[in-house]
Amino acid sequence: MSEYIAHDADGVSVGRVEKQVFTFARPPERLVLESGEHLGPVTLAYETYGRLNRDRSNAVLVCHALSGDAHLAGYHREEDPKPGWWDIMVGPGKGIDTQQYFVVCVNIIGSCAGSTGPNSVNPETGVPYGLDFPVVTIGDMVTAQKVLLDHLKIEKLLAVIGGSVGGMQVLEWCVRYPQRVFAAVPLATTCRHSALAIAFNEVSRQAIMADPNWHGGRYGPDNKPDLGLAVARMIGHITYLSDEAMRRKFGRQLQNKSDFSFNFDADFQVESYLRYQGRKFVERFDANAFLYITKAADYFDLARQHGNGSLSQAFSKARARFLVVSFTSDWLYPTYQSREMVQAMKKAGREVSFCEIEAQWGHDAFLLPNPRLSQLIRGFLKRAHEDIRK
Amino acid sequence: MSEYIAHDADGVSVGRVEKQVFTFARPPERLVLESGEHLGPVTLAYETYGRLNRDRSNAVLVCHALSGDAHLAGYHREEDPKPGWWDIMVGPGKGIDTQQYFVVCVNIIGSCAGSTGPNSVNPETGVPYGLDFPVVTIGDMVTAQKVLLDHLKIEKLLAVIGGSVGGMQVLEWCVRYPQRVFAAVPLATTCRHSALAIAFNEVSRQAIMADPNWHGGRYGPDNKPDLGLAVARMIGHITYLSDEAMRRKFGRQLQNKSDFSFNFDADFQVESYLRYQGRKFVERFDANAFLYITKAADYFDLARQHGNGSLSQAFSKARARFLVVSFTSDWLYPTYQSREMVQAMKKAGREVSFCEIEAQWGHDAFLLPNPRLSQLIRGFLKRAHEDIRK
Repeated sequence: MSEYIAHDADGVSVGRVEKQVFTFARPPERLVLESGEHLGPVTLAYETYGRLNRDRSNAVLVCHALSGDAHLAGYHREEDPKPGWWDIMVGPGKGIDTQQYFVVCVNIIGSCAGSTGPNSVNPETGVPYGLDFPVVTIGDMVTAQKVLLDHLKIEKLLAVIGGSVGGMQVLEWCVRYPQRVFAAVPLATTCRHSALAIAFNEVSRQAIMADPNWHGGRYGPDNKPDLGLAVARMIGHITYLSDEAMRRKFGRQLQNKSDFSFNFDADFQVESYLRYQGRKFVERFDANAFLYITKAADYFDLARQHGNGSLSQAFSKARARFLVVSFTSDWLYPTYQSREMVQAMKKAGREVSFCEIEAQWGHDAFLLPNPRLSQLIRGFLKRAHEDIRK
Repeated sequence: MSEYIAHDADGVSVGRVEKQVFTFARPPERLVLESGEHLGPVTLAYETYGRLNRDRSNAVLVCHALSGDAHLAGYHREEDPKPGWWDIMVGPGKGIDTQQYFVVCVNIIGSCAGSTGPNSVNPETGVPYGLDFPVVTIGDMVTAQKVLLDHLKIEKLLAVIGGSVGGMQVLEWCVRYPQRVFAAVPLATTCRHSALAIAFNEVSRQAIMADPNWHGGRYGPDNKPDLGLAVARMIGHITYLSDEAMRRKFGRQLQNKSDFSFNFDADFQVESYLRYQGRKFVERFDANAFLYITKAADYFDLARQHGNGSLSQAFSKARARFLVVSFTSDWLYPTYQSREMVQAMKKAGREVSFCEIEAQWGHDAFLLPNPRLSQLIRGFLKRAHEDIRK
């Protein structure tokens, strides 16, 4: 148990955080995956913020997206350059108030920030798994999280909240473990990838695999497929923004105001932004993890997996109440996909609120400061917390 | 002078085609480019279809897009697997009727299908230019085409027609050589790239440059940056389609109907389609040419170059009448960009017809059979041909 530094409107305060790892499925017992493969041991890196109350009714699980990790909010050390990835939403007095709720965030399996993934050492060989790591699904990620919650003795989550690939985990939680979820907030997400979303992911994967340093997934720390991963990230950043977002953010602004370079340097600001994002990403993310998580997102199909092809049949398994949020300029998971989700939830008799938030910043909007979003989540959690104890 | 095999509604007919090269700007005389650099000699590969009439009033220049070439229509030999790239539009009795018009198509400079480009031999060194090739602009491409038309003694074009990067050349023609163009048809194009379009091009270029075989642009025929170029082409194909087009064409259809592969093979049809398009492209296209042409497209900015920042001022230099066509599902150059173009043309006093065609297939729609588009172009050319002789 330690403390972390949180910032709120009134200045600096101090919160409680636990930064831990939990290992389970130690061989010969192993986790059975949706593919039929077995995985073990499984380590989960997780953080918790705030305190679990006496009746254990205030636990909120936040699920992170593709490149996220368990470090959700605040600073562990004053010198950290950046706070956790959803610091705008999670903290004392914020949308997800760590003075009210016990907030848990778990690094997903298949990732590279402390939980077991392709970069972990394969106990059978003593070297990193690489492509010997089994393909995991969103369902597998959720199953692993559920084992952790058993370990933490949290029988029912007040809420599961997440955006993008995190939102897929939210939906999966509700139909896989319906008794364990009281309320759910899928943000900027989809019940299944469109061909367009699959196409972007596939091109990103091809960019990684085209890098000779990738070497069939067997690379060392000094010889990583950085160039391929950077291109993959650049493609990702295009999908996180939008035509409108890019126009507002960059337009045709030049790096060198006076004229074109007439060479292949970055002339336009949007070019240097993308190059920078690509370069920065390779410092913190693993190329194989990128392959595995995008594949899991492409495979995710709630209707196929849980409803025999019918989305409302899938949601008829759920028991949670829902707050569904989409953003006007999100063209990776456009609003029409959220509407389909909401219709299927209603058809299945679920209680659901839906809000499309006017936002210019494309898919990334859920990660950016938005008073409307904070307010919606705060209100939804408050009512849920009142009702869960009835 | 030779014949080519053309197909029309009534079966096979035979047209006249000239497949030629023309070389000019032989040192010490050289072509002065917009960058201030000099290029020479300049070779242009071009094809002509049909016959120039006595008063030389029936010449139609068709400008090709990024990956096109001079081979516009028909088959040179019966065993050719595919006809020219716009065979659906150009031929006897088609939208651009080769029995009525003398149709010219020129491979753009900077490309790799017969005209001078980065893959051509630099006369100063005896080896291919590579990145020593100067960065060319859409304006430079048009200037070179104009020298060819001088050579062909075509003083005034009945029409200039082209889509996408070809449409940019159409617009450039009208303001650069206003006396030489009677009518113009820019299709599925823009007066300048949005930040989104630049972003896609930049990521594509980065994919090529990330391939170690690219080697700073110095590669041999046996060691080409094929993987990088394939990824670039895959990115391109995403932009040529659209969310809706991909949903209709592929949806989430699997390659192997029964189940996921649970590995990194192509599970979804959209994945194998993209991989196939990437592989096929590298057989016929040069990676450096891809860099140069995308850069020219990114630099293109009619208002900046010709109107002191004002698009209507740029169009006030033009004399042509316009038929502007956009496609509903084109998200590379969306209709709003064509509307801006049309408004500026009108403000400049130009005669302009505008049509947004309902089409599912995204940016690629201008290359696909569309009776409405053929009819529009046929009618526009007919009236122009009547009026040019008045």
